[in-house]
Amino acid sequence: MHTIADICVIPLGVGTSVSREVTVCERILRESGLKTMLHAYGTNVEGEWDDVMAAIKRCHEALHEMGVPRISTNIRIGTRTDKAQTMQDKVERVERRLVEDTL
Amino acid sequence: MHTIADICVIPLGVGTSVSREVTVCERILRESGLKTMLHAYGTNVEGEWDDVMAAIKRCHEALHEMGVPRISTNIRIGTRTDKAQTMQDKVERVERRLVEDTL
Amino acid sequence: MHTIADICVIPLGVGTSVSREVTVCERILRESGLKTMLHAYGTNVEGEWDDVMAAIKRCHEALHEMGVPRISTNIRIGTRTDKAQTMQDKVERVERRLVEDTL
Amino acid sequence: MHTIADICVIPLGVGTSVSREVTVCERILRESGLKTMLHAYGTNVEGEWDDVMAAIKRCHEALHEMGVPRISTNIRIGTRTDKAQTMQDKVERVERRLVEDTL
Repeated sequence: MHTIADICVIPLGVGTSVSREVTVCERILRESGLKTMLHAYGTNVEGEWDDVMAAIKRCHEALHEMGVPRISTNIRIGTRTDKAQTMQDKVERVERRLVEDTL
Repeated sequence: MHTIADICVIPLGVGTSVSREVTVCERILRESGLKTMLHAYGTNVEGEWDDVMAAIKRCHEALHEMGVPRISTNIRIGTRTDKAQTMQDKVERVERRLVEDTL
Repeated sequence: MHTIADICVIPLGVGTSVSREVTVCERILRESGLKTMLHAYGTNVEGEWDDVMAAIKRCHEALHEMGVPRISTNIRIGTRTDKAQTMQDKVERVERRLVEDTL
Repeated sequence: MHTIADICVIPLGVGTSVSREVTVCERILRESGLKTMLHAYGTNVEGEWDDVMAAIKRCHEALHEMGVPRISTNIRIGTRTDKAQTMQDKVERVERRLVEDTL
């Protein structure tokens, strides 16, 4: 099952700055073989369902191993059977419509 | 890895009412052996990480098998290493504080 | 515009336990005149869009005033024009279907 | 109150493709004067809390006026008092750490 997901990992109990923990997760996602795209409130991820979920689990495991006592993650995950679609397709389709509508 | 999660499955392409699809997912979650609690915008789920994620995957698979062409799910998932905590603990702790603060 | 929402407020920089901050928000939501229902990963809220959004803003303001340096909130918010629906309707409809399907 | 948010609007009852509705929302967000960045599972938005929330409300109103009968939106919204931070800061900080850690 192919999926496009978006992942926002929030470590608790490590203070106000969380960029160290976010970077650890970002590296795990990038090294997982999934397509990824970091943005300002999470990371887009594309691939097989099991691979995406395994990468998210590794993020939680890696942060706990580093000593992070608590993690709350928000995941948006989408699947569809009507057509194949990539992360890039989704963005380009909207960008193209925005241009067309102004012509 | 023990987890408390919250799952909101949104089927697309099936019309405005989604209660049939939500009921299918609710049955899958309840039959998964996980602790569950249905609310008005999702379902709380408690158990082992892999069991929670397997149940969510089965929801997507079952809906697609029923003919649902597209699904977008929102998951909140939390893990902690500092103490064991149940769904009931979380609610009771806040309810107790609400009472204490008014005394 | 009538809405049913679900709100999960996560304070950062206050340590691992967040029940004090969650309780402050829960009190704000309950005193806002909205219908509310606390669960293990957030709070269901029902009312007018502006009232719901004003209550969420008060939660952020109140926590910052208490000294919480950073907050990340996840909101699910739904509106529909095809029919009036309450939080209770949504849960009861699924519960009824679960019973009917086993008859 | 300055905020960085991420918004994912899901229209229900309009079929499987939702790019027309997503484009309407994207235009509203861009014309709102907020900083925005479209990605494959939502849109990053930065600005004053009230402006961000007003733009999200206009998205719901505009879609309902177009005939969309039901909408479910997921919002991540963050505020912090310890320092000023932009969407670009957040991404660059993680990107820089990724590079530094490999040196």
